[in-house]
Amino acid sequence: MTSTLPRTVDPSCLREVLDGRWAHVRREAREQLGDRRWAPVYGESVQEARERVTRLAAELATTGRVSLGFPEQYGGEADAGASVTSIEMLAFGDLSLMVKAGVQWGLFGGAVQLLGTQRHHDAYLPDIMSFALPGCFAMTETGHGSDVQQLRTTCTYDPATQTFDLHTPHEAARKDYIGNAAADGRMAVVFAQLVTQGQRQGVHAWLVPIRDEDGNPLPGVTIGDDGPKAGLLGVDNGRLSFDHVRVPREMLLDRYGQVAEDGTYTSSIENETRRFFTMLGTLVRGRVSVGGSAGAATRMALDIAVRYGEVRRQFTAPGRDREIVLNDYLVHQRKLLPALATSYALAFAQEELVGTMHDIQTAVHEHGEEVDEAAQRELESRAAGLKAAQTWHATRTIQTCREALGGAGYLAENRLPQLKADTDVFTTFEGDNTVLMQLVAKGLLTGYRDAFGSLDGWGRVAFVADMVRETVLERTAARALVTRLVDAVPGREDVLPLRDRGWQLAMLEFREKHTLEGAIRRLRRNAATDGMEPFEVFNSVQDHVLRTAQAHVDRIVLEAFVAGIERAADPGARALLDTLCDLYALSTIEADKGWFLEHGRLTPARSKALTATVNALLRELRPHMVTLVDGFAIPHVWKQAAVLDEEAGRQEAMYREDLAARPGGDTPHDTAVTVAVPPGQ
Amino acid sequence: MTSTLPRTVDPSCLREVLDGRWAHVRREAREQLGDRRWAPVYGESVQEARERVTRLAAELATTGRVSLGFPEQYGGEADAGASVTSIEMLAFGDLSLMVKAGVQWGLFGGAVQLLGTQRHHDAYLPDIMSFALPGCFAMTETGHGSDVQQLRTTCTYDPATQTFDLHTPHEAARKDYIGNAAADGRMAVVFAQLVTQGQRQGVHAWLVPIRDEDGNPLPGVTIGDDGPKAGLLGVDNGRLSFDHVRVPREMLLDRYGQVAEDGTYTSSIENETRRFFTMLGTLVRGRVSVGGSAGAATRMALDIAVRYGEVRRQFTAPGRDREIVLNDYLVHQRKLLPALATSYALAFAQEELVGTMHDIQTAVHEHGEEVDEAAQRELESRAAGLKAAQTWHATRTIQTCREALGGAGYLAENRLPQLKADTDVFTTFEGDNTVLMQLVAKGLLTGYRDAFGSLDGWGRVAFVADMVRETVLERTAARALVTRLVDAVPGREDVLPLRDRGWQLAMLEFREKHTLEGAIRRLRRNAATDGMEPFEVFNSVQDHVLRTAQAHVDRIVLEAFVAGIERAADPGARALLDTLCDLYALSTIEADKGWFLEHGRLTPARSKALTATVNALLRELRPHMVTLVDGFAIPHVWKQAAVLDEEAGRQEAMYREDLAARPGGDTPHDTAVTVAVPPGQ
Repeated sequence: MTSTLPRTVDPSCLREVLDGRWAHVRREAREQLGDRRWAPVYGESVQEARERVTRLAAELATTGRVSLGFPEQYGGEADAGASVTSIEMLAFGDLSLMVKAGVQWGLFGGAVQLLGTQRHHDAYLPDIMSFALPGCFAMTETGHGSDVQQLRTTCTYDPATQTFDLHTPHEAARKDYIGNAAADGRMAVVFAQLVTQGQRQGVHAWLVPIRDEDGNPLPGVTIGDDGPKAGLLGVDNGRLSFDHVRVPREMLLDRYGQVAEDGTYTSSIENETRRFFTMLGTLVRGRVSVGGSAGAATRMALDIAVRYGEVRRQFTAPGRDREIVLNDYLVHQRKLLPALATSYALAFAQEELVGTMHDIQTAVHEHGEEVDEAAQRELESRAAGLKAAQTWHATRTIQTCREALGGAGYLAENRLPQLKADTDVFTTFEGDNTVLMQLVAKGLLTGYRDAFGSLDGWGRVAFVADMVRETVLERTAARALVTRLVDAVPGREDVLPLRDRGWQLAMLEFREKHTLEGAIRRLRRNAATDGMEPFEVFNSVQDHVLRTAQAHVDRIVLEAFVAGIERAADPGARALLDTLCDLYALSTIEADKGWFLEHGRLTPARSKALTATVNALLRELRPHMVTLVDGFAIPHVWKQAAVLDEEAGRQEAMYREDLAARPGGDTPHDTAVTVAVPPGQ
Repeated sequence: MTSTLPRTVDPSCLREVLDGRWAHVRREAREQLGDRRWAPVYGESVQEARERVTRLAAELATTGRVSLGFPEQYGGEADAGASVTSIEMLAFGDLSLMVKAGVQWGLFGGAVQLLGTQRHHDAYLPDIMSFALPGCFAMTETGHGSDVQQLRTTCTYDPATQTFDLHTPHEAARKDYIGNAAADGRMAVVFAQLVTQGQRQGVHAWLVPIRDEDGNPLPGVTIGDDGPKAGLLGVDNGRLSFDHVRVPREMLLDRYGQVAEDGTYTSSIENETRRFFTMLGTLVRGRVSVGGSAGAATRMALDIAVRYGEVRRQFTAPGRDREIVLNDYLVHQRKLLPALATSYALAFAQEELVGTMHDIQTAVHEHGEEVDEAAQRELESRAAGLKAAQTWHATRTIQTCREALGGAGYLAENRLPQLKADTDVFTTFEGDNTVLMQLVAKGLLTGYRDAFGSLDGWGRVAFVADMVRETVLERTAARALVTRLVDAVPGREDVLPLRDRGWQLAMLEFREKHTLEGAIRRLRRNAATDGMEPFEVFNSVQDHVLRTAQAHVDRIVLEAFVAGIERAADPGARALLDTLCDLYALSTIEADKGWFLEHGRLTPARSKALTATVNALLRELRPHMVTLVDGFAIPHVWKQAAVLDEEAGRQEAMYREDLAARPGGDTPHDTAVTVAVPPGQ
């Protein structure tokens, strides 16, 4: 699959492939939000940022961009994929606005829509959609963020008054980090342990008023402010505590569990854990949005770093007329190009994920079909894995881009500090990444048969080890193509070109299968060891299990890239994507070459050849770096990075000065000794 | 070297070893700055932060903590090591104050002291030391940060007026990112190209007034503000441009180059490049301080994360009474413990570096000895390598700690956001890390014979490849001990215990030597290749060359750790440090196991055993995590992390509630299925 790249590739052909199924949503966002006021603002106080973002949120509501996911009868388009894509597009602008929108229309509105029933929709959805009713999604507690099944807030039904008693027993149970809580929220969807007739029924959600018309906390509700944060200054995160607050019976969001007037509890899902994770599963959109938004923010950072590296010069070289541009340095390419390839790969994987989510949710919520539980579990696992992959990639890559801009990258005026600070929490919210990867691993270990989307620890994952499970890689959209490519790999190891796509796919498949089988074997062995504490059975292999999840995610992302290339009609774009995919695959294998060597899948000689091939790919791709970020199609006005407007002009001025000072065509800043190196030792 | 750890180790014994040669400076800082007002403040505006830090800087001047490095005749102690240690201790407090102090007394005061002569000292040092004269170190320009030899500001001597004409020819030549410039600075040490009698003499420094008594810019001086930054809000970074500003002849800091009244230029160092890097070399203190401060900030972050992980619980496990504390999870240990081991290793390496710097500078500046050029070059290389290692370690580890605190880590009240934002630029200032590692590599390639401390690019590094050079590892303090340990390694590979210190040392030695030899071979081969452009000769092996530098730094850091252990008198502390050193060595080897496998230094079986051994070390060290951060001896008042005061209490309240709700000794939150796993497949 060695590609010969054309000299130039039309970036609009790349854009077309990346824009994908919801291209119209992306196009409209570029036009509709093309005004400077949607771009981030630097140096604001917390107060200024909050007020501006609240204003913008209200304005955003009038654009229709936030109603795409809501039912048609309330003016929405019942298009889940469009709603997630719309949020992702906001992430190119002010990330506080993206998060504020995600809280209001994704989490809060989404919970009312998906956990509530007709009466909640009629009463509240129109005001939620218009932002007349700002609200919170109050799930996380100070003491429980990852293990939400163990929330300590209680909501106890009293048939005498037909109200629930919502209560925060201690500080660890207060709701914390809640967006929209510190300033704007008028209601909150509050998650708590439902108790009725003396029985706990597990976590449910209620719609609870928290502020009056004047913005004062309602009786029994204590509202705190989380204060200054690393970033996302425009989001008013806060804390909510409830002192025996009375909540009317009908405010229970009762799609999955109902309490009758007399306190009788009913649910179509008998098992409490199953019910809880079914409820949570409907909210997968939030996690998909965070992953997508992290992807957008990363592409923004790469856009800035690549364009800067194309004009910024540093250090002279013998025989060169001008100093060298940063992008010409191999080590600079090593920093930016594999990250760029990964960004393309993840964008394709995200596109596939959004499509799957859309199809499943449309079937269930619009067409009233039965939930395909295995498909739903797989969707949740995919969403978890790609959320972790995209947000870690964001954290790493935005950091790299910051450093790639040197001192300029530390100034707010060049965007990267805010980008870094705002996205930093993405690895934590909507599920801590490490815990999410554990969830992915659990799905792999059980083949999704019993893996409720639980963010649980080793305790409840215990049962997986006794599942007799065939290790079968579950399918992605590209499965047929992948199988064909893998089967076409010639048998003789020594003749394999590293750039054979089938070989690359087979390597990642092998790693996933082998790691998974090893994890299962070790879990069984531990479990059979007398005297080994149950916690230790799992804890001693936790690193191995998480590696399994990582290997899985790497594999599905590569398959998504392969499928994405198929969508490229233009031969030049296709060739470029092919080469970029080689870089993604080989730099992924290179990053874990120790494992492949340990397991006899790379010889030392091939391993060294791998590094040489990655470097060769960097050379091939070097002339296309700007084209690759052009393909992201980010409007210039969204970037708000002063260097992008100024650096090229500065370099030109400096060059003109040098030329003027150079009477005989000398090279004034080349003081280098001529290279004169004798043949090697 | 398998160690059996005692159940408890006295952390004060660890502190003693870490405190090292300037223990008294550390002790005094803990006492003298033990007041809350030296701790960081969260949520300030830029204006508030600047004013507070300026006030504190003036107060700091009265403590004597900033005068340690200045000559005794002006009230200092002429103790270079103490001055760097003192700055490092400030890094546990407000990092803006640390940087402000570093600018005023390290860079600005240091330049006047080391580049100036008696008349400059008499006229200015007292006011600099007292902060009556706040000043700037104006070296970096918008267009040249790393390649300072190419600065574009000019300073041209006019014998008629006996003044210099200081001029900024275009925007790329303006001084940028200059601390103390935007608000406080009254004078600046300005670096510019000296021109006299129509001849360029290279970069020199002048002491230039920039503001009048009322704080207004002087005629011809334009002062800009760099505006909001990612962090370090209390430091007023700014931009300086000069429009033909007249600078009196005697304001040239003329220790290394003099201009006579008639414009005749003289210098004791004939070669311009040599002269320039000799001048820069005297300023190595700044780079040493940044590395040390990064180390301190990292230890602070680890202290917070480890203590939080010790009380914070999440997820239940079968058979356990309470939820599991984070530090019990293998993957949490994997995040924190190798970082903790690296922090110890780097602290020992920094201690050694400060000692070497102190001895060299004392010999030259206090006792008037000749500069030992090779030793000075080696010092500069060591300072560069350890600055890069410590600041990258800081960036990675503080990020890890932020994530290890979950949502709490995103709140300003828990310190980590400010720690992250403030230290982020450390990888860039005082030399971009990648460029610094190139400098280290250059020293290795030339054996320091001609490697002036140049931060230069591939152009001028060209000449190195024709040096016929024996690859000899230069010595560290532990060299004799290291040789003895390495020589004691038995010859038979299969009987080697991974925890044999000699084997670990030999592995890192081998990697350094082999990588270096390979780089030299490849450079020669390239240079002998017809038609290969000089830039490509070097650029095509840039990644290899930087790996050489990394291998070198890893080796000297391990040797420093080995030497540090020797200083531990207490057997318990010694055993603990021994085990921690195993973890540092083996996790360093594990991180690059691909290389060792490629080069036949690990078999696949041993490579797998390596991972198992690292995990076993984590288990051994787990009970000592808190002891290890106790060893850092950071006063509690400096930490300012709300969770450290609150989390344990919250967990206790929750536990008491659980116990109260548990009539028959049930475990209410353990809903896990009992582990019942049949023997393996």
